[in-house]
Amino acid sequence: MSHAPTAALKARHRTLRSSSAELGVDALVVTSLPNVAYLTNFDGSAAIVVLTASRLYFITDFRYITATQDMIGQPHECPDLELVVVRGSYDATLAAVLASLSSTRIGFESANLTVSRYEWLRRALPRGEISGPELMATSGLVERARVIKDDYEIATLREAARRLSSVAREVPTEVRAGRTELDIALAVDWRIRKAGFSKTAFDTIVAAGPNGALPHAKPGERKLVEGDLVVLDFGGVYDSYCVDLTRTVTVGKASERAREVYEAVLEAHDRAIACVRPGESRFAIDAAARDTLGRYGLGEAFGHGTGHGLGIEVHEDPKVTRRRPEDPVDHVGQDEALAAGMVFTIEPGAYLPGWGGVRIEDDVLVTEDGVETLTDAPTGLIET
Amino acid sequence: MSHAPTAALKARHRTLRSSSAELGVDALVVTSLPNVAYLTNFDGSAAIVVLTASRLYFITDFRYITATQDMIGQPHECPDLELVVVRGSYDATLAAVLASLSSTRIGFESANLTVSRYEWLRRALPRGEISGPELMATSGLVERARVIKDDYEIATLREAARRLSSVAREVPTEVRAGRTELDIALAVDWRIRKAGFSKTAFDTIVAAGPNGALPHAKPGERKLVEGDLVVLDFGGVYDSYCVDLTRTVTVGKASERAREVYEAVLEAHDRAIACVRPGESRFAIDAAARDTLGRYGLGEAFGHGTGHGLGIEVHEDPKVTRRRPEDPVDHVGQDEALAAGMVFTIEPGAYLPGWGGVRIEDDVLVTEDGVETLTDAPTGLIET
Repeated sequence: MSHAPTAALKARHRTLRSSSAELGVDALVVTSLPNVAYLTNFDGSAAIVVLTASRLYFITDFRYITATQDMIGQPHECPDLELVVVRGSYDATLAAVLASLSSTRIGFESANLTVSRYEWLRRALPRGEISGPELMATSGLVERARVIKDDYEIATLREAARRLSSVAREVPTEVRAGRTELDIALAVDWRIRKAGFSKTAFDTIVAAGPNGALPHAKPGERKLVEGDLVVLDFGGVYDSYCVDLTRTVTVGKASERAREVYEAVLEAHDRAIACVRPGESRFAIDAAARDTLGRYGLGEAFGHGTGHGLGIEVHEDPKVTRRRPEDPVDHVGQDEALAAGMVFTIEPGAYLPGWGGVRIEDDVLVTEDGVETLTDAPTGLIET
Repeated sequence: MSHAPTAALKARHRTLRSSSAELGVDALVVTSLPNVAYLTNFDGSAAIVVLTASRLYFITDFRYITATQDMIGQPHECPDLELVVVRGSYDATLAAVLASLSSTRIGFESANLTVSRYEWLRRALPRGEISGPELMATSGLVERARVIKDDYEIATLREAARRLSSVAREVPTEVRAGRTELDIALAVDWRIRKAGFSKTAFDTIVAAGPNGALPHAKPGERKLVEGDLVVLDFGGVYDSYCVDLTRTVTVGKASERAREVYEAVLEAHDRAIACVRPGESRFAIDAAARDTLGRYGLGEAFGHGTGHGLGIEVHEDPKVTRRRPEDPVDHVGQDEALAAGMVFTIEPGAYLPGWGGVRIEDDVLVTEDGVETLTDAPTGLIET
């Protein structure tokens, strides 16, 4: 269970009810688990929510009955929750709940319902001659609300970032010649768990020497050697919220070239963060990093976006990327400015095939008057 | 990357081409990542396959180009692979690939494509006056093939189970009064990684005392006390394949009641395994476990199925459960018998609210003439 206070959940429900009502939707079916978590504090592996004007039907199976009931009377109790225990299958139970409502227009999450489940549900719902309920595709209603973090979420992310930063300060002690990437990844994961995270937020990346040129390298049996640049990218889940951090260190003395590339990436990182403020375009943040790298001849070496939102998922909106008019990247409008309460990564990098790579990543919060960098481990080049 | 030999991949493609052809599908779009892994050995986080009669189009993004190219010329190279690098978005690239084919009927995986992606794809495909390609929903074509493991998969699962069993033999040494569930889970995860698994297959369960009554408890701050029953359920991913094992031990001396419940669950476990052979119904395996527990008055205490398939996913087909005629549980026909090459768990349990629980789980392979238990850690009650 996550621990958002009841009042925070109430506010989230209010927002959703209002955006549903704007679409004429009188019952919203939420099948995305991160969205379910956002609305209820539930962090198990299976549940469906149906949100109506007055109730929140919470459909789950026998495994989670006790955990759900244990929330009652707690400060993080989900308001207006009506527990529905699955009989038969989740979808059959959902159909029965929907049939019991007097809803005329039922919204579903089109990006979180498969074609086969949709077709099944459509056939399972009652149809009157004239008046069976209509199933209506909705897109990103909950995701959109999740973009602006509330006070509880900000406090949680701040604490998570503080803990991850302390892990980051310890990690360079694990990097030394002769150890394999896998050994170091295992040690990093251990430290993440000891720091109070329930799990890692993704598979830890330890990419040494030429492997650093692959932004998503898997740690392998490669043994570190003197002079290697080592990209260490890791994250943790704390009370259901994800934080994410990257540092690049060298084994022993850095080469001249390593130092140059490092300084360019660090400048891109710093300039991007310096741009973050309410009212700024996220494309401008990306450009600040990208243009800096371009000035050092590293524009082509930076093949990914500058950042991604953080929250219940480790990759969520807003995405801090180049503008791509033909290909909307997320649920935040292309021309929508940054606003206080957004939390995302800033993680420029430079990847040089055959040579290696550098990435430096921190997590930032847009505040009323600028930016707060939530992670606070040192960013200077560390020669271990 | 997984390491199935090229010949094994060829055979898998042949099977899929034949089942596609039976439906009149001349290009099959595979969007499920485990299915993509099965067909190509790719184990990254994003890719789409389009399988036609002569080619396998492999759509992935810049992050995975090097890894894909590195496979060329290797014993595990994917045959007939045509690498297509994403431009813009995955779906736009997919639409371009499909438009370049002369296919008239394009199959998609209806359980692995969301309504919004389907609608986007439908609109993006070219439409002739008469002859634009038709998008056809398919269900479980690859999942069905994955139910019967080939020689490579069996060898991999056997090795994975051997390694997990050695972890299971060490785990009881971690269980002692005063430690928390979380501490023990962390130690178990460390041992799994040290045993050569790339990661845990799911979040490790350590459920002590009354927490053992929740089949999916999350490890918490509860400190173990003398007499606790402790359910330890853990798994690992080895060369892309998942294995899964549960043992229940006591802290110090077991109570009389703990011993009784344990012996009943163990008898259910042994009787279920003894039934496994080609030609048997999976419902009969479930009944063997369930009826045994019923005889000890524990029928109501066993609220989940007896087992689930193992492979690239930790929960796959076949599911070993009660027969539910109204609710087909997987892609294996209800009346289809067990066959050689199926691999699944046997994991009966008994959960007594307020008191605790017992679960004993092993992984079995259906052989030509019976069963091979892949995991081989001792099953007797261990008092630590």
